[in-house]
Amino acid sequence: MPARIFLDNAATTPLDPTVLAAMTEVMADTYGNPSSIHAEGRKARSLIEAARKTVANALNCSIGEVFFTSGGTEANNMALKNAVRDLGVTRIISSPLEHHCVLHSLDAIQATGAATVEQVRIDALGHVDLEDLAQRLNSDDDRKTLVSLMHANNEIGNLLPLEEVAILCADAGALFHCDTVQTMGYYPLDLAATRVNFLSGSAHKFYGPKGVGFVYIRNENIIKPYLDGGAQERNMRGGTENIYGIVGLATALERALLEQDDRMVKMHDLKRYFVDQLRQRVPDVRFNGDTERSHAKVLSVSFPESPKGDLLLMNLDLNGISASGGSACSSGIDVGSHVVGHLHPESLRHTIRFSFSHHNTREEVDEVVRKLGGML
Amino acid sequence: MPARIFLDNAATTPLDPTVLAAMTEVMADTYGNPSSIHAEGRKARSLIEAARKTVANALNCSIGEVFFTSGGTEANNMALKNAVRDLGVTRIISSPLEHHCVLHSLDAIQATGAATVEQVRIDALGHVDLEDLAQRLNSDDDRKTLVSLMHANNEIGNLLPLEEVAILCADAGALFHCDTVQTMGYYPLDLAATRVNFLSGSAHKFYGPKGVGFVYIRNENIIKPYLDGGAQERNMRGGTENIYGIVGLATALERALLEQDDRMVKMHDLKRYFVDQLRQRVPDVRFNGDTERSHAKVLSVSFPESPKGDLLLMNLDLNGISASGGSACSSGIDVGSHVVGHLHPESLRHTIRFSFSHHNTREEVDEVVRKLGGML
Ligand SMILES: Cc1ncc(COP(=O)(O)O)c(C=O)c1O
Ligand SMILES: Cc1ncc(COP(=O)(O)O)c(C=O)c1O
Repeated sequence: MPARIFLDNAATTPLDPTVLAAMTEVMADTYGNPSSIHAEGRKARSLIEAARKTVANALNCSIGEVFFTSGGTEANNMALKNAVRDLGVTRIISSPLEHHCVLHSLDAIQATGAATVEQVRIDALGHVDLEDLAQRLNSDDDRKTLVSLMHANNEIGNLLPLEEVAILCADAGALFHCDTVQTMGYYPLDLAATRVNFLSGSAHKFYGPKGVGFVYIRNENIIKPYLDGGAQERNMRGGTENIYGIVGLATALERALLEQDDRMVKMHDLKRYFVDQLRQRVPDVRFNGDTERSHAKVLSVSFPESPKGDLLLMNLDLNGISASGGSACSSGIDVGSHVVGHLHPESLRHTIRFSFSHHNTREEVDEVVRKLGGML
Repeated sequence: MPARIFLDNAATTPLDPTVLAAMTEVMADTYGNPSSIHAEGRKARSLIEAARKTVANALNCSIGEVFFTSGGTEANNMALKNAVRDLGVTRIISSPLEHHCVLHSLDAIQATGAATVEQVRIDALGHVDLEDLAQRLNSDDDRKTLVSLMHANNEIGNLLPLEEVAILCADAGALFHCDTVQTMGYYPLDLAATRVNFLSGSAHKFYGPKGVGFVYIRNENIIKPYLDGGAQERNMRGGTENIYGIVGLATALERALLEQDDRMVKMHDLKRYFVDQLRQRVPDVRFNGDTERSHAKVLSVSFPESPKGDLLLMNLDLNGISASGGSACSSGIDVGSHVVGHLHPESLRHTIRFSFSHHNTREEVDEVVRKLGGML
């Protein structure tokens, strides 16, 4: 069987071999409960604290600001819901293009009546309209406000100007939550220089394990746990820690930073090459979102309407090519993407998201473009 | 270095080698996102659904009633908080001996004002007073009621008569949540025969991985997610699944059931032997809770007051013996146990919880008893 071509790296990434090795070692050797004070417990705890230091170093923040979670979803739920519950936030400004874990957390918050949610304007390319954001922030509204905007959109790749938004929020006295799940490990972040109040990471997006992530909570923003329980994570997150997952996360993040430049150069090249090849070979091909000011990893391709279009994803799969229709995180069945739907509500065109890793090659892109020919 | 003696198996257990092997294989081979519809995604999903079937078979329930979580803490938070939010529960009957993840979830619920919490009476041996429970359930109070009582106490081991309580609740039209984290895999459970509405499991208590568990939710009790996000777990729990953890959980549970009788015989023997040896060799030794109607795994020993008593746990550790003071899940530092504190509020005696596994031996018990001699 020929090797498959995996172009769905925004949905998830394979474990890096160094991560697998680190995790396997911990799984075989370390079984103490990190909350126990005996030797086995202390050994487990020291691994977690070393991992926390790695994450804190990566973000240039303090270790007291990093809390491990079961993934990006928990991190975002915790930040949003507890900012409302514990910090007196009564107004949230967000966007219709956020990940479902943010959108649905905001729905849950609205349902309690504790805060109202308003949507910032999105421009034709899928970017947040910063003027609209500034206007909302500087309106006479004196409610305690939280802005929740993602760093890179997982479906179209568009990048938020993080520093600018951080400054807008800080100047207006608003809190800023940024879903950085797609950019963590890909783009540098310096939280001493950039004022974000909450951000989130998920290991499986940067060649680490699934089911583990973290939330960064700025020191001055004191919220209570979302998972009530023991004193784990400095009383901020109950539950016996996923030690191997946490070690895997830190190993993966460290490696991602070490290889960041090389990986990004490679992905940028693949994305540009893919765009060029598609433009040359596929009549009336278009792209959702901004192919320039966007994550090197993500390319959302819009194919012209065609009777075969609904089967495109399946046909790619049958031909050994893995890509995505809607977001992988939102449904087993492709119900279409709320992001592309927002940008092109009337369109009958067919969207496929291809997303790259440094493991992909130009040869793979060539093969995909060649095979696509027969499927359109 | 001589091998250490691990008698802290209620805090956590080492990975079973078969579990380690199953997890390592999945980590190396399966990296798809279970929500993706391509081959890699379907492979990952099929592993999760097979694991769900294993758990459902173990509990004699349907697969639609099992939802994977990040552990027992999340399972208990979800069941309790969402039963209140989504099922109209306004009154909770619980006990002061529950695990912190239940106690603190109840605190959080009370703080919202959505429900009031009352405590059932606990008798001198640490058992729930069933008459008091029945009286509360059959009072004129017609508020929608949830009973939350743990199956085995993690600190003293006492076992709840699960079937009796289930019948009391059902007869009174109350919902029943049972924290089964300590008994899952140790005592048989048949949810077709016993009417529990919510229960919880955590893999690391039965030789599976840390950071993964599940919640059982009876079909008729329709609650919404606690972690809002994608459509994972049939729309009941957002977040990319911890596939290796879930496979590890199912492997461990399957094995625990297969070996259940053998393991229980072994632990019962060790516990009885330990009790006998202590009684013979330690003047004025006592036991917290009921040593008979209690989990074979747990023995809470009460040593007479002594100047060296505060250092007992540390001295055991220095001598290569791992045990626990308070609950391992509640603090890094031994602040004493809320369970023992409730039973013996005035006592100056020193409590050590020893907890067994089928890996322990009588020789280990002998050595512990011998070494204890010099520490008291
Ligand atoms: C009785 C009981 N309930 C719940 C938990 C919490 O489980 P976890 O640590 O997997 O979140 C534990 C142990 O930690 C426990 O002993
Ligand atoms: C932008 C974004 N936020 C949050 C998440 C959720 O992360 P996790 O699946 O680890 O919970 C994802 C991916 O699933 C994502 O792409």
